[in-house]
Amino acid sequence: MAGSTFGKHFQITTWGESHGKGIGVVVDGCPAGLPLCESDIQKFLDRRKPGKSRYSTPRKEADKAEILSGVFEGRTTGTPISLVVFNQDQRSRDYGDIATYYRPGHADYTFDEKYGFRDYRGGGRSSGRETIGRVAGGAIAIKILNQLGISFLTYARAIGPVTIPQTAEDLLACVQNNEYSLNELQEHILSDPLYMPDSISSEKTQEYLEDCMRETDSAGGIIEGIITGTPAGIGEPVFDKLDANLAKAIFSIGAVKGFEIGAGFAAAAAKGSDNNDAIHMKDSKPCFDTNHAGGILGGISNGAPIVFRAAFKPTPSIAATQHTVNNAKEEISISIHGRHDPIIVPRAVVVVECMAALTLVDLMIENQGATMEHLQKLYS
Amino acid sequence: MAGSTFGKHFQITTWGESHGKGIGVVVDGCPAGLPLCESDIQKFLDRRKPGKSRYSTPRKEADKAEILSGVFEGRTTGTPISLVVFNQDQRSRDYGDIATYYRPGHADYTFDEKYGFRDYRGGGRSSGRETIGRVAGGAIAIKILNQLGISFLTYARAIGPVTIPQTAEDLLACVQNNEYSLNELQEHILSDPLYMPDSISSEKTQEYLEDCMRETDSAGGIIEGIITGTPAGIGEPVFDKLDANLAKAIFSIGAVKGFEIGAGFAAAAAKGSDNNDAIHMKDSKPCFDTNHAGGILGGISNGAPIVFRAAFKPTPSIAATQHTVNNAKEEISISIHGRHDPIIVPRAVVVVECMAALTLVDLMIENQGATMEHLQKLYS
Amino acid sequence: MAGSTFGKHFQITTWGESHGKGIGVVVDGCPAGLPLCESDIQKFLDRRKPGKSRYSTPRKEADKAEILSGVFEGRTTGTPISLVVFNQDQRSRDYGDIATYYRPGHADYTFDEKYGFRDYRGGGRSSGRETIGRVAGGAIAIKILNQLGISFLTYARAIGPVTIPQTAEDLLACVQNNEYSLNELQEHILSDPLYMPDSISSEKTQEYLEDCMRETDSAGGIIEGIITGTPAGIGEPVFDKLDANLAKAIFSIGAVKGFEIGAGFAAAAAKGSDNNDAIHMKDSKPCFDTNHAGGILGGISNGAPIVFRAAFKPTPSIAATQHTVNNAKEEISISIHGRHDPIIVPRAVVVVECMAALTLVDLMIENQGATMEHLQKLYS
Amino acid sequence: MAGSTFGKHFQITTWGESHGKGIGVVVDGCPAGLPLCESDIQKFLDRRKPGKSRYSTPRKEADKAEILSGVFEGRTTGTPISLVVFNQDQRSRDYGDIATYYRPGHADYTFDEKYGFRDYRGGGRSSGRETIGRVAGGAIAIKILNQLGISFLTYARAIGPVTIPQTAEDLLACVQNNEYSLNELQEHILSDPLYMPDSISSEKTQEYLEDCMRETDSAGGIIEGIITGTPAGIGEPVFDKLDANLAKAIFSIGAVKGFEIGAGFAAAAAKGSDNNDAIHMKDSKPCFDTNHAGGILGGISNGAPIVFRAAFKPTPSIAATQHTVNNAKEEISISIHGRHDPIIVPRAVVVVECMAALTLVDLMIENQGATMEHLQKLYS
Repeated sequence: MAGSTFGKHFQITTWGESHGKGIGVVVDGCPAGLPLCESDIQKFLDRRKPGKSRYSTPRKEADKAEILSGVFEGRTTGTPISLVVFNQDQRSRDYGDIATYYRPGHADYTFDEKYGFRDYRGGGRSSGRETIGRVAGGAIAIKILNQLGISFLTYARAIGPVTIPQTAEDLLACVQNNEYSLNELQEHILSDPLYMPDSISSEKTQEYLEDCMRETDSAGGIIEGIITGTPAGIGEPVFDKLDANLAKAIFSIGAVKGFEIGAGFAAAAAKGSDNNDAIHMKDSKPCFDTNHAGGILGGISNGAPIVFRAAFKPTPSIAATQHTVNNAKEEISISIHGRHDPIIVPRAVVVVECMAALTLVDLMIENQGATMEHLQKLYS
Repeated sequence: MAGSTFGKHFQITTWGESHGKGIGVVVDGCPAGLPLCESDIQKFLDRRKPGKSRYSTPRKEADKAEILSGVFEGRTTGTPISLVVFNQDQRSRDYGDIATYYRPGHADYTFDEKYGFRDYRGGGRSSGRETIGRVAGGAIAIKILNQLGISFLTYARAIGPVTIPQTAEDLLACVQNNEYSLNELQEHILSDPLYMPDSISSEKTQEYLEDCMRETDSAGGIIEGIITGTPAGIGEPVFDKLDANLAKAIFSIGAVKGFEIGAGFAAAAAKGSDNNDAIHMKDSKPCFDTNHAGGILGGISNGAPIVFRAAFKPTPSIAATQHTVNNAKEEISISIHGRHDPIIVPRAVVVVECMAALTLVDLMIENQGATMEHLQKLYS
Repeated sequence: MAGSTFGKHFQITTWGESHGKGIGVVVDGCPAGLPLCESDIQKFLDRRKPGKSRYSTPRKEADKAEILSGVFEGRTTGTPISLVVFNQDQRSRDYGDIATYYRPGHADYTFDEKYGFRDYRGGGRSSGRETIGRVAGGAIAIKILNQLGISFLTYARAIGPVTIPQTAEDLLACVQNNEYSLNELQEHILSDPLYMPDSISSEKTQEYLEDCMRETDSAGGIIEGIITGTPAGIGEPVFDKLDANLAKAIFSIGAVKGFEIGAGFAAAAAKGSDNNDAIHMKDSKPCFDTNHAGGILGGISNGAPIVFRAAFKPTPSIAATQHTVNNAKEEISISIHGRHDPIIVPRAVVVVECMAALTLVDLMIENQGATMEHLQKLYS
Repeated sequence: MAGSTFGKHFQITTWGESHGKGIGVVVDGCPAGLPLCESDIQKFLDRRKPGKSRYSTPRKEADKAEILSGVFEGRTTGTPISLVVFNQDQRSRDYGDIATYYRPGHADYTFDEKYGFRDYRGGGRSSGRETIGRVAGGAIAIKILNQLGISFLTYARAIGPVTIPQTAEDLLACVQNNEYSLNELQEHILSDPLYMPDSISSEKTQEYLEDCMRETDSAGGIIEGIITGTPAGIGEPVFDKLDANLAKAIFSIGAVKGFEIGAGFAAAAAKGSDNNDAIHMKDSKPCFDTNHAGGILGGISNGAPIVFRAAFKPTPSIAATQHTVNNAKEEISISIHGRHDPIIVPRAVVVVECMAALTLVDLMIENQGATMEHLQKLYS
């Protein structure tokens, strides 16, 4: 594939530039018979919209999703679903020197080196707006997975120096102890301006972000995802491991610099006797005492919650003075003004969730061919 | 693909189980005209062989690579290269209860859930021996990349609680300051029993591993890789980003729980003004003052060294008593005896290097189609 | 892939139904730097438009192509090109019983069996309008190939019982003997209402089609394609042979029932001594005396013109009474009225040309990775 | 993919040259739980062995298949199945001028143009021996399909000027009328030295082939395949149509110059009223009165027998004098001696059958993801 397609069965192909006519995605391989309408998708697009808090760009992005194909009488037909969000904000404008110099931390230089020139308007294809297609496609994946009993919980675990005190296991324990339901927890997270599950941490972070903005600087953070309800057996051994495909999916989001599953980097310093998850029986099913594996063994889901984290670098667009070069190979100093998020982590939460869902639904369809028994059940 | 194939152009398909007749790989898409013989591959296989130090299993694995196709008169022909290592150690043996219970930290349970049964001999397909095919294929990728001026430096950065004090940048600075050449550094690493570049750390680690072995326990660690000489422009925007493909490649190695590029997880806590790499001119080329990006911007190589790290969990096979269940759904206690590595990190170093090389060569071939200029140069 | 994507490097993903909001294609992997505007694409779409002669449906299809992404300042950027043709003719309408019964020769029954239901409006995804995306993508492929010195000549060789007397070799001989240029020949074909290169045959065919229409019946035919200027060496041995990929490309067009290369089915009755193409030197290059191979040997282009033929079945929509069943499993008689082409061959000519171009450009990009020499030329 | 891999789910990767160490295939994506042993595969390899009649090369090819992985305790495990046939006949030998000149009708010239040089021993990768991997993989596909109630009947329909008088429909009618069973018909075909279902035609053909051999010439022919028992609904609309994938599969076999489905090229001259297959009810299922569609509508199986034909060119290796050039660009005359088949059609029958089976099993696995209902059945 030429790089804009993700997935093997449930396959998305995204297109569009920040300041082109629109941004879109073609979803191919969606099973027929799924009830689907534009509001199913809009709900997710709204989660990545800016302007929800004062820590995201005040740009107005209406980002209205339109379904152009693949749905008939309210249900998916099995044929490709074309989704488009037309850009509102295409007015001709002075991009100043942005066309001629390379912003540090951006892909300006590498695009020029690869292709000989680039669409410099608002980052072009490497803009964060590219994720609109992922979220539109991911919304469909999540709807399918919800129907199969699978739920997603994704949130900001850390922003700048602030980290929430609860682990993923703590959050899940509260659900298991009926302190609140998974839905309530999700609603709580969605109501936080930074999509943090812990309000005290969120407030501390907001103070930190105020400082960043005063210093015309930016911050990064860590997003954590939990997937519950995945049956055991999903993921292919060797190269298409569930964790390997998740790693690629998440790392394909701009600004991600790290990814880990379960105990992650901490496992490197642990001993085997601590890190192994002992197994016991519960409700007549094997069950793991701990979840250092993060729900995946040998690349295949083990039925425990899938837990992963992604590290996002700070937004590279800052107003502070920076040193760089232009395409005439002159050294210059720049200061990037305009409407930029001092932190993109909150808006990226839904992107992470969608990429995880796209990965999982694809491997669940793949797994249908794992045994002769599955084939015989369908074809006789 | 059905999971045992990696790559789009330079494509490897691996096969084989730990205690089957052999382990092998088919390399398809290797450019014609590369000088290749079995010793080119053996050199790399020898780096993953056990028995090099007392911290790896005393099993004797001859692991002799044979080329069955694709090479004629000492050069690759452009047709698939079939490589096989026949297993020496297939004698029928008592696997005891291993067939019936699920070892914690292993893929026994997930294979059974996925396929209904499993080849339980020595881990079957999920054995570490599966990596033989990756290394054999990767050896060819590295030979190609070397001919294009690209070099690899891969080593154990941390084992258990010990971390080497030098950063990747420190090591590269010594090379740049002519304290030693890249080759000398590589030779130094290869001469260390744990493949650590720092001898004092290596000695401390060896003491730690002695303790582990006494306690019948095991350790994990972090492998770091540096790729120098990559031209700018490699990697496809959006899904087939160089870092996304690397993440998948490395995460597809059993026991990997984390992956990061450049500043990695540390970037999440940094500010934009610190994390952005300023650019200046050097030898009339743009050059980065720092390398928090790890050589990749927007998924495309920027010409700086590519630096990445992978976290490995401790070997799950330990002699200490563990709690688990068997396939009759009974809770039992087990203690795994046999010849197991207390630490697999040193042997995994070459596997990481090979997976990185496979990723890079594939995207370099892909990049040939990036511009009309490339096509016109070839076809006129 | 999930079936709506074609190609590995130069990759098109089509979407859209006959009576949905629109029909479109995403072209991924197009090399950067190709001058491209909407009229480049419109020119080809106009060739598949109905209403050019009285033998095609009098439906008005404006079919205006819009470029939504991937082109900046008049050149392709290397990122996906999204092309859309919005449907004009979506007014709500009475589809009568078409939703409930299975038209003979159509995919109504098979879609229902596969997906459980179908978008019955105008054939939905199996409509001939689906080829709009192919033609839009193919127009770009042809523009690239033209810049590399490759030309296409595609025409109706036979319709119903009428076959043109000239072989492909005859037509090429006239060009070689300077009776007319390739361009003039192409213009001549494009000026014929049936896209036949022989005017006498065209007139005979028109009489035949008048009869068909009077009898409320329909006709099929054979389309022949000639590709000149292809360098030797294109196509991958074994599965991705140039002829195998062409066969798939052409056979993926609805209504195609046969495909052949060079001597085709006639080769089956020939003797080796007749069928082999002897080789001599011409302009210091090996040159073939005859072209029974159709320009391809062992799946790889040999530099001679590529010649192939595709057989199209008669349009299945006819007004004559037919026996069929409905989805209540009752046997019924139907007569299909409405605006249907009595012959689709003339409109399919450009579709065949586009699918051939898509196949060729994809394998030409693939071939860039064939030798170490190519890689070394680019990367040093 | 780099050209040696076929299929998306049930995926084969073949390797090996005519006179290298061996020929093999890796089958990835085979469902777990299929009983499989080497004799299952040998049975099919024996059908492509030479020496069965005097019309095939007297070379002795033992062609013993070995299973190296993926089978445990007599059943497939779901992991890759590596199959190898070691070449017996690798003795160093004088290949004379074959290395330096280009045999007409062979791929010598195109391989040299593509790769710069070639393995000239016995055709190298473009040898007919390459099909061993296809047959070994196809044998497994057929075993799976047989378990799902699907049967294959493949035979020589025509050789040189002789064509059997029975159509595929005639043969199936005899089965339906209980004149003989499908198995008896298959056994009858397998017992014929030319794999023709009609003994009189076979005898006439044998006389013709005697003439060919006397004249040191060669013959081509047409192979016909019938697949019965395929459920309706198999095949993906648009590019991965069942007939498009079959066309590619069959056209990827060396020497194939034409392919057709159902009425094939004859459909081009028919009228719609004749070519459409009317539908009636039978055993409470829709059933087609005729089968001009060849069992496929809109690229999707309709439940009727799938009927297709492939045209094979005459063997290009002939002892008669031929004109060609050498790689010093000199014009020369050659006469090819050695052990060559005057007709390869009989030996190719099993190859055609296997490629058809590989195509079908792949699309049947793909079809498992067609509806939400399938997913819900498996995952709840």
